[in-house]
Amino acid sequence: MNTERFEFLKKDYVQGFPEDCGFEVDKINYGYFESRLKIGPKHSQQDGFVHAGVIATMADHTGGYAAYTTVSENERILTIEFKINYFKPALGEFLVCRSKVINNGKTIKVSESEVFSISAGQEKLVSKAMVTLIAVSADSIKTT
Amino acid sequence: MNTERFEFLKKDYVQGFPEDCGFEVDKINYGYFESRLKIGPKHSQQDGFVHAGVIATMADHTGGYAAYTTVSENERILTIEFKINYFKPALGEFLVCRSKVINNGKTIKVSESEVFSISAGQEKLVSKAMVTLIAVSADSIKTT
Amino acid sequence: MNTERFEFLKKDYVQGFPEDCGFEVDKINYGYFESRLKIGPKHSQQDGFVHAGVIATMADHTGGYAAYTTVSENERILTIEFKINYFKPALGEFLVCRSKVINNGKTIKVSESEVFSISAGQEKLVSKAMVTLIAVSADSIKTT
Amino acid sequence: MNTERFEFLKKDYVQGFPEDCGFEVDKINYGYFESRLKIGPKHSQQDGFVHAGVIATMADHTGGYAAYTTVSENERILTIEFKINYFKPALGEFLVCRSKVINNGKTIKVSESEVFSISAGQEKLVSKAMVTLIAVSADSIKTT
Repeated sequence: MNTERFEFLKKDYVQGFPEDCGFEVDKINYGYFESRLKIGPKHSQQDGFVHAGVIATMADHTGGYAAYTTVSENERILTIEFKINYFKPALGEFLVCRSKVINNGKTIKVSESEVFSISAGQEKLVSKAMVTLIAVSADSIKTT
Repeated sequence: MNTERFEFLKKDYVQGFPEDCGFEVDKINYGYFESRLKIGPKHSQQDGFVHAGVIATMADHTGGYAAYTTVSENERILTIEFKINYFKPALGEFLVCRSKVINNGKTIKVSESEVFSISAGQEKLVSKAMVTLIAVSADSIKTT
Repeated sequence: MNTERFEFLKKDYVQGFPEDCGFEVDKINYGYFESRLKIGPKHSQQDGFVHAGVIATMADHTGGYAAYTTVSENERILTIEFKINYFKPALGEFLVCRSKVINNGKTIKVSESEVFSISAGQEKLVSKAMVTLIAVSADSIKTT
Repeated sequence: MNTERFEFLKKDYVQGFPEDCGFEVDKINYGYFESRLKIGPKHSQQDGFVHAGVIATMADHTGGYAAYTTVSENERILTIEFKINYFKPALGEFLVCRSKVINNGKTIKVSESEVFSISAGQEKLVSKAMVTLIAVSADSIKTT
């Protein structure tokens, strides 16, 4: 990946809903994306844990950008579907999400996202997702 | 469901992350929950559509509360896993999510959530999820 | 659907693994497929119930053919992924699977399959699946 | 795992539907199970590939037995749900499935199953599944 593309993806990742959630980019490689979230009160669910929706959003978005590293500037990535399992209630200071493309088809791509909670320096795997994505031409998706 | 329980669920639904997202309660019955979101700029993804994470959060949270209507005050509902398909990019003024319990086991419950976009009064099914939940005793889940 | 297409699908459904399993066709409409299985000892798992794999095969195959009813003779249907929930252990004389296309995209299609056990004339919903499929040109899939 | 338990699991794996399919056991460790299938004409779908249902059955059954290695003689394992992605059409002489428990809860367990095709000595990852399982007491599941 050239520097320009790297900078584009790093910036592009943080906007709209993911920016509002507070996700940040940690690391980008071809077929790999890593993100981070400083956990705050606004991320909680009714029992005080991080909400399943925060974790799902992170797993989907980071998995999508792992796939985004594999396509050209003329393509966009959309989520077809994903499935996520929750292993433990998430608590702590940070969430880290590590996503990699495990099937890099030309059109259909599959990413795997692992979400870890970090509490007092200890990482714990709290969730894992499989995300099915489709690469479409940038021209084909106009919102207006 | 008695009025007290109804009021509890209606209020309990809107807190933490779901409150921050802007979800509101439309309708509650035994085994059924309906929610609404006024779509704003903060809900978008990189191409201008509503972010998959917003839709997933709504599908999970509303599906969870559909299950929450079926248990006693001494139980809580946690998400084991869910799977969600995206049918069309979501655009418009509102999202509505309709969730119903389709398998009401004593411990394991399964909800189905359908998410619709509403644009100029027209409803469109944009997403569907299956959510697997577990009922646990309130005492068993302490965050501190 | 013309009679010729109907007869083709009815026959095409029962071959290879599905034929070996013993699945039969009950009903075909555009976007809809229904199949049946007479439960025998060979369908069981270690505790005497119908094996989850039998039910998954039925849900996938019938969901795939529901999608197959929506494409032309020049297209084939392949499964991208599916997710299936098991509600109750399956026992009885028959399984019936009812599948319908719930998102009929040009390339990506999503079917929903409900599997019922029939015991002494009583139907019970034992399983439900969401199946994501892709329509590809018949020419593109050569096995040799 | 003691030898007796090992022998029990090895034998218990091959019965009913899995035996009829032709699955064999390759390797067993605590939290790990590996199985093998010699591909034959009866495993095919309409285009000549191995049927998605064969692969799903193998992924579910092997994932279930990976979980089965982690419980005592008084417990049984049932599938709550699973999700499986198909990466490439499967062809060749053998399928191999490698399953490991990735979340070993007391009651709820999650296995991951990778299915490989082997053709002329070459392994190819054709499918991956996440399987959610529940451990129940042997007494609680009577079929009669």
